[in-house]
Amino acid sequence: MDQPWTHRQRPERLERRLEFSDYEATRLFLERLEQLSEQQSRYPDISFGRTYVNLTLAPVSEGDDPVVTEADHAFAASIDALVD
Amino acid sequence: MDQPWTHRQRPERLERRLEFSDYEATRLFLERLEQLSEQQSRYPDISFGRTYVNLTLAPVSEGDDPVVTEADHAFAASIDALVD
Repeated sequence: MDQPWTHRQRPERLERRLEFSDYEATRLFLERLEQLSEQQSRYPDISFGRTYVNLTLAPVSEGDDPVVTEADHAFAASIDALVD
Repeated sequence: MDQPWTHRQRPERLERRLEFSDYEATRLFLERLEQLSEQQSRYPDISFGRTYVNLTLAPVSEGDDPVVTEADHAFAASIDALVD
């Protein structure tokens, strides 16, 4: 099973790695994520190959020292909901 | 201007970073790259955010110790041709 989100620091961020059975599944997930990103005007950093996607979510909170808040966990959960 | 491809070692690979003016330009490039990847059955590792794409091309040559060859430079050149 895929790992859940990891809360990392310096800088504050949420990270998750997803693995897929084939390129079609990877592509389908990325298409859904693109729609979600556009809806929310929020673009995670995405790293992917044929059968994996690594996601990094920067905090949405502003200021000099942004921290991960409930809003970020909520966005992460909405990404989780895109996975079959 | 964007940097050209860099030939790196351990493991052997070609890398390039591309920057785009906005998300639409990034997205257009990624769509073209997806078509090229499917045509050639060759999937670079791709890392991207709203306005950048980092590409890593593993050598197409096989064996225990694959090295970057002309075939890889040719594929890299075909990726370059996708950039406006």
